[in-house]
Formats: sequence, structure tokens, C-alpha cells
Amino acid sequence: MASHLVLLAAVSVLSVCQQSFFAWQVGKARLKYKISPPAITGSPAFERIFRAQQNCVEFYPIFLITFWMAGWFFNQVLAAILGLAYMYARHHFFFGYSESAKQRLFGFRMSLGVLALLIIQAVVGIGYELWDEYMDLKFFKKLVF
Amino acid sequence: MASHLVLLAAVSVLSVCQQSFFAWQVGKARLKYKISPPAITGSPAFERIFRAQQNCVEFYPIFLITFWMAGWFFNQVLAAILGLAYMYARHHFFFGYSESAKQRLFGFRMSLGVLALLIIQAVVGIGYELWDEYMDLKFFKKLVF
Amino acid sequence: MASHLVLLAAVSVLSVCQQSFFAWQVGKARLKYKISPPAITGSPAFERIFRAQQNCVEFYPIFLITFWMAGWFFNQVLAAILGLAYMYARHHFFFGYSESAKQRLFGFRMSLGVLALLIIQAVVGIGYELWDEYMDLKFFKKLVF
Repeated sequence: MASHLVLLAAVSVLSVCQQSFFAWQVGKARLKYKISPPAITGSPAFERIFRAQQNCVEFYPIFLITFWMAGWFFNQVLAAILGLAYMYARHHFFFGYSESAKQRLFGFRMSLGVLALLIIQAVVGIGYELWDEYMDLKFFKKLVF
Repeated sequence: MASHLVLLAAVSVLSVCQQSFFAWQVGKARLKYKISPPAITGSPAFERIFRAQQNCVEFYPIFLITFWMAGWFFNQVLAAILGLAYMYARHHFFFGYSESAKQRLFGFRMSLGVLALLIIQAVVGIGYELWDEYMDLKFFKKLVF
Repeated sequence: MASHLVLLAAVSVLSVCQQSFFAWQVGKARLKYKISPPAITGSPAFERIFRAQQNCVEFYPIFLITFWMAGWFFNQVLAAILGLAYMYARHHFFFGYSESAKQRLFGFRMSLGVLALLIIQAVVGIGYELWDEYMDLKFFKKLVF
């Protein structure tokens, strides 16, 4: 089990470091633009960095679930590569958004594309497993049991 | 292992699609009410949709953990049904909140009720496993080992 | 598998209860300071409580991933203890921040220290597993296969 999923674990820990790095950038921007907590407004540049991080936070559980499901039920190596591509897209998104709202779009669209590929893999893998598990009447036995 | 948890995986991927759908609704509302990023205020209708999505984001890891723990340690089929019920409650919450702050309440309370049932299942299942694992002095052997 | 990770499951369910408790505190603060949804500003005391919870939400997936990876690939008991330490730090952070922005610092720094220890454990454990799995030329066989 552990060896079958170790690449997913490795990419997850890398992505955790990236998320922490984004949070740290917001802290740095607070100092630079003199926005003391708990304020989250007051400077457009700070607000862009803050929203960039917030958007990454919002999508992080979505990424993690699709990433693990794709790697677990479809193919670990493929999912790991897409996981790294997602991190690259988020890097672009974050630093693009820091510059201007418009420059966030490339990274954002790329991250959505990667998520779509991961979801397709997850659906195919889980669909296959469900078919294997519940077709040929095992379903009813399971439910009754 | 994979077959034992495949229903949880399937519901998780469905819920990921729902979360993405909520995020997409916020993007649509940005266009409709002309709130350009990074702004998150300016129109009460937009703010309701935005807060509705934010609340779903906040509770998503809470849901995922209780859902998986309940399904893994208690009963996969029961947890999967409650997972679908949670998604239904969140759907109500999101579109209720989009209408008015008051209309969010039914879906919100239902989602809390479902979470409470999932937590009870998780606690019972994990408690049973802990008892099985660590009682009759195995605990000390484990720690020493 | 289940027994090997049951302590992680137990701590996860505890931490889910803590996150729910923080969300409930925000609801209480809404009533106390008369901030009706969807507003999130209007009273510095409410904003501090709200930001305290938001910060816990942001770091929650980061915590969960490092916690599970450390417990799975390194040592379950150690990770469980650090998980409880993280919850303690977050408790301090939340109620400190409720008092004043400055009082959030102790809990925040402690939570970062605990996260750093968990990440080190995860990296060591996953690194060992990767070495074990992919060195001695098994890597190329896997890729080709």
C-alpha cells in the first residue's frame, strides 16, 4: 500500500511546502504594504496577493482529492506528473496575480486544465473499480450482507 | 483496500465537482455584478454568493475527514449515503444563500446534522478499533517496541 | 492498514471537532457584535475572531497532509503527539487573536514549529520509502512496465 502511493505522498508534501510559501508571501506583503492583521484591505497590491493565496487555498482540497483518487485508482506516475504540473500552474497564477489581475489568467486556466485531466483519470479508475466490484450481482449480496 | 473504499472515492469525486461548480458560480457572479478581482465587496448579491462559497470551502476539509473516517472505520455504504445527503444540503445552502441570507439556514442546519451523524459513526468506529488494538496490554508492547 | 493508522484517525476526528468549534465561535461573535451575514467587517473584535478562524481554515489541509504523511511513512505515535501539540497551538492562537492581534503570535509560531517537525518526519519517511522502492534499478522496470 505505502509503496504503491509513495509518489503521491512525495508530491503532496511538495505541494504543502508551496502552500506554506504562498501563506508566507502574504505575511511578507503585510509588512511591505503596512496592512496589520486583521485588516485584509487597504492596498490593491496587497489585496491581489491575498486573493491569489485565498484562491490557492480554496482549490487545494479539490486538487488533493482529485490527485489522490487519480493516482490511487488510475496511475500513480501519471498523477504525480500532473500534480507537478498543477504546482507549476499555481506558481504562475500566484506570481502573475501579484503583478496584475489579468496576469493571473494563464496560470489559472492551466491549473483548471490539469484538474480536468486528473478528474477524468479518477472517474475512469473509480468507474472501472465500481464495475469490477458491484457488477455480476455482487452488489445485492453486499447490500444485504 | 481499494475496493473497500471505492464508494467513498466516488462520492468524493462528485463532491469535488460540486465545489468546483460553486467556485464557477462565484466567477459568473463577478461578471454579472461587475466585481473585478481582487475586490470581494460592492454588491450585496455578490457578497452573498461569495460568502456561500467561502463557507462551503471552510467546511469541505471537515466534511472530507469525517466522511472518510466514518466510511473507513464504520460503514462504507452508510457513509456514502450521508455524503450524498451532505452534498444535497450544501446545494440548498448555496442557492438559498444566493437568494437571501435567511434562506441559507435550512441547508446549513441540514449539513450540520449530516456532519454530526458522520462524526458519531467515525467516533464509534475508531473507538472500537482503538479498543481492539490497544486493550489487553498490547498498548505497552507497542510503545516499548 | 486500519489498525496501523487508527491513532491518526482519532486525532483527525478531534481536530475536526476543534475546527467546527472555531466556526461556531465565529457564529457566536456575529450575534454578539451584530454583524449579519454576509458582512465580514464592522467591528475590530469580530474581524479578529473571523481572521483567526480563517487562518486556521487555511492551514488545516496543510496540517492534515503533513500529519498523515508523517504518521504513515515515519511513526504513528510521534505524529499523533505532534498532532495534539498542533491543536494546542491553534487553541492558543485562536483565543489569543480574539484578544488582540499581538497575542496570536505565540500560538502561531508554535503551530509553525510543529508543522516543521511533521514535515521533517514526512520527508525522512517518504525519502526512505522512495529509496527502497526505486533504487537498484527497479525504477526503470516500473516506468517501462
